[in-house]
Amino acid sequence: MKKIKLFDTTLRDGSQVAGVSFSVEDKLKIARALDAFGIHYIEGGWPGSNPKDEQFFKKARTLNLRNSKIVAFGSTRYKGHRAQSDPNLLAIVKSKVSAACIFGKSWNLHVEHALRTSKDENLKMIADSVAFLKSEGLEVLYDAEHFFDGFKNDPDYALATLAAAKSGGADSLNLCETNGGMLPSDIMETVRRVRENFPGVELGIHAHNDSGCAAANSIVAVQEGCSIVQGTINGIGERCGNANLCTIIPALQLKLGYDCVPEKKMQGLTELARYVSEIANLVPEDRQPYVGSNAFAHKAGVHVSAIARDSATYEHIKPEQVGNVRRVLVSELSGRSNISHKARELKIDLEKDPESAHKIIALVKKSEEKGYQYEDADGSFFLLTKKALGEYRPFFLLKAFRVSVEKDEKGRMVSEATIKLNIKGKEVHTVAEGDGPVNALDNCLRKALEKFFPEIGEVALSDFKVRVINAGASTAAKVRVLIESRDSSSVWGTIGVSENIIEASWQALVDAVEYKLIKNK
Amino acid sequence: MKKIKLFDTTLRDGSQVAGVSFSVEDKLKIARALDAFGIHYIEGGWPGSNPKDEQFFKKARTLNLRNSKIVAFGSTRYKGHRAQSDPNLLAIVKSKVSAACIFGKSWNLHVEHALRTSKDENLKMIADSVAFLKSEGLEVLYDAEHFFDGFKNDPDYALATLAAAKSGGADSLNLCETNGGMLPSDIMETVRRVRENFPGVELGIHAHNDSGCAAANSIVAVQEGCSIVQGTINGIGERCGNANLCTIIPALQLKLGYDCVPEKKMQGLTELARYVSEIANLVPEDRQPYVGSNAFAHKAGVHVSAIARDSATYEHIKPEQVGNVRRVLVSELSGRSNISHKARELKIDLEKDPESAHKIIALVKKSEEKGYQYEDADGSFFLLTKKALGEYRPFFLLKAFRVSVEKDEKGRMVSEATIKLNIKGKEVHTVAEGDGPVNALDNCLRKALEKFFPEIGEVALSDFKVRVINAGASTAAKVRVLIESRDSSSVWGTIGVSENIIEASWQALVDAVEYKLIKNK
Repeated sequence: MKKIKLFDTTLRDGSQVAGVSFSVEDKLKIARALDAFGIHYIEGGWPGSNPKDEQFFKKARTLNLRNSKIVAFGSTRYKGHRAQSDPNLLAIVKSKVSAACIFGKSWNLHVEHALRTSKDENLKMIADSVAFLKSEGLEVLYDAEHFFDGFKNDPDYALATLAAAKSGGADSLNLCETNGGMLPSDIMETVRRVRENFPGVELGIHAHNDSGCAAANSIVAVQEGCSIVQGTINGIGERCGNANLCTIIPALQLKLGYDCVPEKKMQGLTELARYVSEIANLVPEDRQPYVGSNAFAHKAGVHVSAIARDSATYEHIKPEQVGNVRRVLVSELSGRSNISHKARELKIDLEKDPESAHKIIALVKKSEEKGYQYEDADGSFFLLTKKALGEYRPFFLLKAFRVSVEKDEKGRMVSEATIKLNIKGKEVHTVAEGDGPVNALDNCLRKALEKFFPEIGEVALSDFKVRVINAGASTAAKVRVLIESRDSSSVWGTIGVSENIIEASWQALVDAVEYKLIKNK
Repeated sequence: MKKIKLFDTTLRDGSQVAGVSFSVEDKLKIARALDAFGIHYIEGGWPGSNPKDEQFFKKARTLNLRNSKIVAFGSTRYKGHRAQSDPNLLAIVKSKVSAACIFGKSWNLHVEHALRTSKDENLKMIADSVAFLKSEGLEVLYDAEHFFDGFKNDPDYALATLAAAKSGGADSLNLCETNGGMLPSDIMETVRRVRENFPGVELGIHAHNDSGCAAANSIVAVQEGCSIVQGTINGIGERCGNANLCTIIPALQLKLGYDCVPEKKMQGLTELARYVSEIANLVPEDRQPYVGSNAFAHKAGVHVSAIARDSATYEHIKPEQVGNVRRVLVSELSGRSNISHKARELKIDLEKDPESAHKIIALVKKSEEKGYQYEDADGSFFLLTKKALGEYRPFFLLKAFRVSVEKDEKGRMVSEATIKLNIKGKEVHTVAEGDGPVNALDNCLRKALEKFFPEIGEVALSDFKVRVINAGASTAAKVRVLIESRDSSSVWGTIGVSENIIEASWQALVDAVEYKLIKNK
């Protein structure tokens, strides 16, 4: 089993993504998680470029990492500078890391247009800079920026830049596909040529996803002889993102037999992906390969019944291998096996009770005809099964509600809701305002219930979605409202459908609250 | 230049994605857009499986498509059935399409576990079914489900299933990577073997994205000899999605020199991608290759200045080639050519008037920051340009409105709106009920205006969409309302944004009416 070294650049290249800005504390948290998972190199930042990155390197020394080396990023020396006095290189040395990753130019176009120097001077810049960092006792990974474009344009010169890095003592030559537009056939051919020219030298790949092929390109590069893979968690990065380590690691290890991380660690992949999303404050991508919440979600009934017999029929790996779970979506396309499976997740065993299963299927079908959909509404589905089984008792009775929205002569908007409930035999009448009619209704319902059921205070509404079902009917169309709620231990979805958005929201709000109350009993 | 046939299955396989449910009207709209872009085959659905798909095929006959053939999907006949009396196959014939795509089993595991029949019977089922549809005069594309898994397991049998389809007269053999877990090296080897075994036969590829390699796998398959590519717009589909045509088409045509669509059509790719997202009510993926709003977005200052000198330094293609635009994130200023283009559509020439163009761009930018988006709201965009040019005069002034929704003790819902307007110097106070608060408001506004502007009676609201923008803020989140209106001669979209859905709807309703009044002047 050939060993692969994983090089994570979430904290450096990944932080270039639109909308993400990591604090030093965020960076330290992510570094800890990467170390725990078994990443070999963590590129922490560019110490010469900003004070935040300098801070990070200072604090990172106290992390006591077990598996990872912290790497400082930088460029080759400026033209005309001596490496020994180049501020960028000195900043790397000052950061006291044991490994550095420095990039140099491989492409004529950049040497001329960006560096504005000669091809020879560029080669010297590369060799000098690597040699200086080696003389300071660092491991040096050389990043050949734009290597593949450079190789297309002038293969001899591109190879000469690698030779310069090697002559300076670089520990590895990392081929960067900086513009991200290459296809697997380009990568295969180019890496093969580099491999032939540098036998015995450790090679790495750094890919971007502009052609949608970053993972494939990285995998192909490994098959052609690269043993270092650079990428980010969830593929975050500028433009279309960097190569996604969450996609590459399981492919290399579970499918191609390379050794990336200890087998047990692989089960932490999904958690790692979600943790990084959380810290970056990015909504996790549901359909992300391996680690997305839909990666093993099945909708078509024929798939579900086949999977019940043998999961390999419609799953390329077992979700547990990467710490993910199978989900069965209950939908218009679903048959009985979807519903049984979903019920099992909610700890209701319908296999043993075919009569109840029938009742539930009938109820689901009827609801679906009205526009309900339970794929994302496990809370409402749970209540539906309880109702079908005759196990449901309401916690409160609605007597009436009223919502009003006014825009007054000064253009001010006021939204107010009043609700009259019967709770434990008592009539409770509350009023509340909100940022809109649904928010007012939500506030008003909570106000009524919290006195009787203080646990309602633990529930936070974390998502709210509205979809018009029969859009053609225009403003008289039916709307479907989906609400996601969470407390400290779980997340549940609830649904409401009506021609009236207020009524639909009301249904979803009531289900959200009732699910919580049943769950806590 | 080798010709590639594009086979879109957004309406069939794509509709398997969690949370998406297309109406018949949605499907017809998407079919029209696919045809306009130049897609060769549009797989519309599975006529045997549900009444919605049957409806679609009926209505699709009236579409008068120029470039696309509508294809009906189905499976090979049931075991034990005669093809001539198989309900699934008959449903395809009844749908009156000129092309059918039917799938059969290639993998032992499925023949035994899912079909529960013998390997020989499976071969007969394939040959019979294809032959029957051919005898009915249809073009038959044969989809070899799980072909790559089947080939790994038992190459001879997998090839035998293809031979069966060919013996039945199939026009093409489409190799399906159903579980989506294959890597480019698997695809290359397998397609090469099939190519050798079936010289001269048209081959296709159908990939899924569970390994994150669907686009790469499709491209590799074409390089190995497939000339039909099956996929979906934006890669929507079950689990991790189908192969994304928006990623594959530009790679094949712009990078590898294949002929997919006429050169000019390629510039409509970004618009097509966003249109389908809009109809599916899915948030467009910002970092989607080629068509995402971040695909050509640059954050790093060094990149931006290099790009100013030569865009090839950090861009793999020119964004205009696919109808996208470069964005520079620091200034957030973008889309000038977009705006000029959009204005031209509305017969406003901004090229000649750079000062007005500046004003409009500034106004658009300000609105976009608040959550407005004008891609699908040409009516609101038109009014915005009129406002920027100082050419807008209101037809009426709102003094106040009030909307109330009540659920009474008997569970009856009543929605009522009152509006106070000043029209041509007169105060007009109206009240109306509706099926929900927005419908009540719509009815009430029309009631007020129709006396003064009888042409309002010609306007029908034909679509209504709601999207939550900052979902994390839950029921206090901002919502974006899009309304589509039409009269006998045209269709226009209008938009409103607010934390209050009633206020957002009001804005869109007012724009819809004002656009009509200006248009008719």
